Amino acid sequence: MTDEVAPTDRPDLYEGLLTTRAIRRYLPDDIPETDLNDLLFAATRAPSGHNRQPFRFLVVRRSAATAEVRAVLTRGYQAAWASSRDEPATDDTSRKARMARTMSHFVDHIGEAPVIVFACLDQQVRHADLSAGASVFPACQNLLLAARALGYGGVMTNWHQVVEDELSPLLGLPDHVTIAATIPLGRPVGGHGAVRRLPLPQLVFEDRWGESAPWAADPPGTRYTGG
Amino acid sequence: MTDEVAPTDRPDLYEGLLTTRAIRRYLPDDIPETDLNDLLFAATRAPSGHNRQPFRFLVVRRSAATAEVRAVLTRGYQAAWASSRDEPATDDTSRKARMARTMSHFVDHIGEAPVIVFACLDQQVRHADLSAGASVFPACQNLLLAARALGYGGVMTNWHQVVEDELSPLLGLPDHVTIAATIPLGRPVGGHGAVRRLPLPQLVFEDRWGESAPWAADPPGTRYTGG
Repeated sequence: MTDEVAPTDRPDLYEGLLTTRAIRRYLPDDIPETDLNDLLFAATRAPSGHNRQPFRFLVVRRSAATAEVRAVLTRGYQAAWASSRDEPATDDTSRKARMARTMSHFVDHIGEAPVIVFACLDQQVRHADLSAGASVFPACQNLLLAARALGYGGVMTNWHQVVEDELSPLLGLPDHVTIAATIPLGRPVGGHGAVRRLPLPQLVFEDRWGESAPWAADPPGTRYTGG
Repeated sequence: MTDEVAPTDRPDLYEGLLTTRAIRRYLPDDIPETDLNDLLFAATRAPSGHNRQPFRFLVVRRSAATAEVRAVLTRGYQAAWASSRDEPATDDTSRKARMARTMSHFVDHIGEAPVIVFACLDQQVRHADLSAGASVFPACQNLLLAARALGYGGVMTNWHQVVEDELSPLLGLPDHVTIAATIPLGRPVGGHGAVRRLPLPQLVFEDRWGESAPWAADPPGTRYTGG
C-alpha cells in the first residue's frame, strides 16, 4: 500500500534523487544544531555562476526573537493560499482534495516549522532575471536533498513574495538582497518516496524541440502527475 | 596528494552532494542510452512550482544532424570567453591560470562533448524572472548530481545567450521557450571530489541578515575559494 521510505533510510545518491518529496507536515522535533550545520554545508556546496556564491541562507528557528517574522510569513501564506485555492468538499477523497487539506494545514502552521530557511540572492540588483536563479536554486535543491539524506524534509516555496515588503525590514535585508525561496524544514510526518511527474517522453526531446528521444522511457512502475 | 574520487565510486546521497564538481573536460566515450535515460529521469524528479514541470530537456549528441548547433554553440562560447578572460602567462602555475587553461579548452571543445543538454523553460513568457528559475534549476542540479552518481560529470553554463538568436531556430524553439542552462555531459577527465567554497559563516546567517549562526562552521579539512 505505502510507497514511503523510512526516515532512517540512507539512500545512495541516485536513489535519493528519485525519492525526495516535497514535505509540508513536520513533527514538532527541533533539528539539532549539528544537523543544521550539515544541511547548510551541503546546500552551499552547490554550483553558482563563476563560483561567485551569491546565495546566502538566513535561518530562522522558533525563538521569541523571530515571532514576528513567523507571524507575518503565516499571514502571507494564508492569504496566498486563500486567493489561489479551489474549494473542494471536505469529504472529498480525491488526491486534489487531499492536497488542498495538506496545503491548508501547511499555510496555517508554516510559522511553527522547526526551521525556516530564507534562501537569499545577494546581487547588486533587486529584480534579478531568470539566469540569476542558476546561482541560488541549485543550492536550494541541495538543501532539500541533504534534508532527505539526514531524515528531514522540506519544500521550496515563494509565497513570501506576498509579504516581502514587511519581511525584508524584519529580516534586515539590504536593498540588493532578494529572497529567492522560503524553505521550511523538519522531521516529516509521513515520508519520502517516489515522486509523480509527467511521462518522460513529454519532458525530454532529442535534436529539436518536440522531437521524441527514442531512448526516453519511464522505468516500470513509474507513477504520473494527474489521474 | 589527490583529493579526487574514482568515477566508479557510488556515494551515498549526503556525500554525493559534497563531492560533485563542475566537470569541463570529457573522455571521448559516448554515454549509453540506458544511462542517458537514467540521467534525464533523475533530472525530471526535481520539484517545480505547483509541480507544473515547465522544464524540458533537449538532448544533443554528436550526430551529423546537430553539427550546426554544435558549431554555433562553440563559436558563442569562444566569443564569451574571449571577452571575459584575463590573460595569464601560459607558464603560470597558479590556480587562476590553470582555470583559464581549462576554460580555453572547454570553449574550444564544447561542441564535441558526448552529450549537450539544453535545459529549457516552457512558459508563456520569453523573459522569465528570478522565481521562474525555481522550476528549472533544481532539475539542472539533479542532472549534475545524477551524472556524479553514474560516473559522469557536467557543468551548468549560460553562454548560449551569446548565440541564442541563432540557436533557437536551429533547435526549433517556440517563442515561449527559453534556454535556462546549457549542460555538457561526459565521462570526466580527472574526477569529482570536495569543492571549494567561501567559509560557511559568510554564507549562513541566523535571525537577521549579517548575524552569524553560532552553530555554523566548516568541517575540518574544508578548502576555501580564493587563496
